[in-house]
Amino acid sequence: MNITIERAALLRSLGHVQSVVERRNTIPILSNVLLRAKDGELSLAATDMDLEIVESVPASVTRPGGTTAPAHTLYDIVRKLPDGSQVELDISGDGALLTLRSGRSQFRLSCLPVDDFPQLSGGELKHSFAVSAADLRGLVDRTRFAISTEETRYYLNGIYLHAARAKSGGTDLPVLRAVATDGHRLARVEMPLPEGADGIPGVIVPRKTVNEIRKLIDEAADRIQISMSENKIRFGFDSVVVTSKLIDGTFPDYERVIPVGNDKVMEVDAKLFAAAVDRVATISTEKSRAVKLSLTRGTLTLSATSPEAGSATEELEVSYQDGPMEIGFNSRYLLDITQQIEGEGARFTLADAASPTIIRDVVDSTALYVLMPMRV
Amino acid sequence: MNITIERAALLRSLGHVQSVVERRNTIPILSNVLLRAKDGELSLAATDMDLEIVESVPASVTRPGGTTAPAHTLYDIVRKLPDGSQVELDISGDGALLTLRSGRSQFRLSCLPVDDFPQLSGGELKHSFAVSAADLRGLVDRTRFAISTEETRYYLNGIYLHAARAKSGGTDLPVLRAVATDGHRLARVEMPLPEGADGIPGVIVPRKTVNEIRKLIDEAADRIQISMSENKIRFGFDSVVVTSKLIDGTFPDYERVIPVGNDKVMEVDAKLFAAAVDRVATISTEKSRAVKLSLTRGTLTLSATSPEAGSATEELEVSYQDGPMEIGFNSRYLLDITQQIEGEGARFTLADAASPTIIRDVVDSTALYVLMPMRV
Repeated sequence: MNITIERAALLRSLGHVQSVVERRNTIPILSNVLLRAKDGELSLAATDMDLEIVESVPASVTRPGGTTAPAHTLYDIVRKLPDGSQVELDISGDGALLTLRSGRSQFRLSCLPVDDFPQLSGGELKHSFAVSAADLRGLVDRTRFAISTEETRYYLNGIYLHAARAKSGGTDLPVLRAVATDGHRLARVEMPLPEGADGIPGVIVPRKTVNEIRKLIDEAADRIQISMSENKIRFGFDSVVVTSKLIDGTFPDYERVIPVGNDKVMEVDAKLFAAAVDRVATISTEKSRAVKLSLTRGTLTLSATSPEAGSATEELEVSYQDGPMEIGFNSRYLLDITQQIEGEGARFTLADAASPTIIRDVVDSTALYVLMPMRV
Repeated sequence: MNITIERAALLRSLGHVQSVVERRNTIPILSNVLLRAKDGELSLAATDMDLEIVESVPASVTRPGGTTAPAHTLYDIVRKLPDGSQVELDISGDGALLTLRSGRSQFRLSCLPVDDFPQLSGGELKHSFAVSAADLRGLVDRTRFAISTEETRYYLNGIYLHAARAKSGGTDLPVLRAVATDGHRLARVEMPLPEGADGIPGVIVPRKTVNEIRKLIDEAADRIQISMSENKIRFGFDSVVVTSKLIDGTFPDYERVIPVGNDKVMEVDAKLFAAAVDRVATISTEKSRAVKLSLTRGTLTLSATSPEAGSATEELEVSYQDGPMEIGFNSRYLLDITQQIEGEGARFTLADAASPTIIRDVVDSTALYVLMPMRV
């Protein structure tokens, strides 16, 4: 293989694929990026055995061929080359050595055979539909903060993506839903079901895959093609394809967690509320991070105390017409949720100090958050 | 004590003083900032017993008084208050409780008595002189990277500041010199001796003090007043005074480390050299970070090899008229030094592969760096 390619194009693609490669690998070839050149294109691929990313980029191919080279080292070298330079990649006959030349720099990197590189993406995926970048971003951003990090509850370590019917008022619409929960809070976000997504299985997309595709969304053209089977999901961007195994487990019946009888309603300016929670939480202990909400007609008082530090209180004007009540929350979780609210107002629907509370954006019904209270 | 003060002014001062306060303290009062109000001024002070910072800021003082309050908590609260707000600080009669009010927020913080706060700054310092902010920045920036972090060689854990005579050509001028070394590299920077600095003792300013004053230099007015005795140094900025103990030890005779017989001279573009070293070092092993410099007439070849990764070479045009030679350096140290060179050219004065090399800015004789070679 011998190719010449622009440094900027190579850097962008290496940036995408090296991100999947773990820093430490027990299997040496997993540290490498698969490079294959033919027909005016360089194809790059990396995998951690659960997640694979493949990208194609135009290159001037003098001699086709392929090898696998250390991904992080190659990325670092290309990153450090001057802007605007051309990069020549040359692979010796047996593929054991990659020579990179640019200007008066020359690097030789030890390689491993193409045939040893694990293949993940083979196989047809039955279901396929397209979503807009903005819609996919909306599903991901408003749910991923709630993904559990507890490895023992592996079935919560991802976003549960599935088709559902949204029932509200008289309407009953098919939707594509993303749900994540860690047992303390739950995020449920939905969008109209895309054409071709009827009958998709419910799948749990692992956290690492979610984070990798999130990075690609910002660079993506408008449409992203999603394909899936029971075991795999694939995200097709312009020149990048991400294929991932799914979490093999059963996502809990989250609808049971969403309370239906909450009858006390508070509406508050989301930004003022978040700033006040953040201030008051300065005093809450590092461990509990607890903040108490005391509601009376028209007024919310936030407070926190800590045996060492002291106490804090702050009042906010709110829309609240029900009887006085007090309820405690983890301030970190409150902030995670209110930061997702893009509109001006947040609506809290409460029952009592021991029951889960529902939080929504006043002007956007596509997202719903459930937060468990804590004793204060 | 009861005062009202602008949030921005209070935040800036708390930012300065909280930086001295360690996150963990075995003596509780060292976590606190000393607050004293009188005559239209709030004075803030913090110390770690080796280093003290005192700042005064205008405030509307309704009732004079003082206390000591948790520095990091107070800083966090004020940081989170809205821009442009006014802050009221009120201390109860016995000084055990500080109440902070701003808008509809109220915080109560546990305090400790003023009398228990350790005093460091007492005592007259015999020598006193002024330097410009630019000169002090030059001394600090170009030496502090070479300060040793080895605690056993405590006498190298700071910058050695002293008066000396700079002999070069026919001139013999009194200078103020800053020197730092960790045994692998040495940095010596000088400026004309300020008026009043004759006869100052040679002092070792600890790393933490160096870093604190470095932060204050950027905000400083042009002149900074430096006072010192055998045991203490004081830096007077506009409204901030930093007093520090000195390292009680003997700085080694650094002049003996600076070679005088080096006869091979290489001049190279400092920015191109640094970029090339950085690229080639991508291949050097994490542990040694070694880069080899091979010199022939007019050409420098940088190279690195690693058993796992492969090899790298890069050629640079240089001005060099002597016989061929090879020498190895730690690439991290080479970069630390060449990043301090503000002019276009770096001049290396070399002897052989086993002897220390001198590096200077071609157009600036105030800084001199010595770098020990490593075997490659």
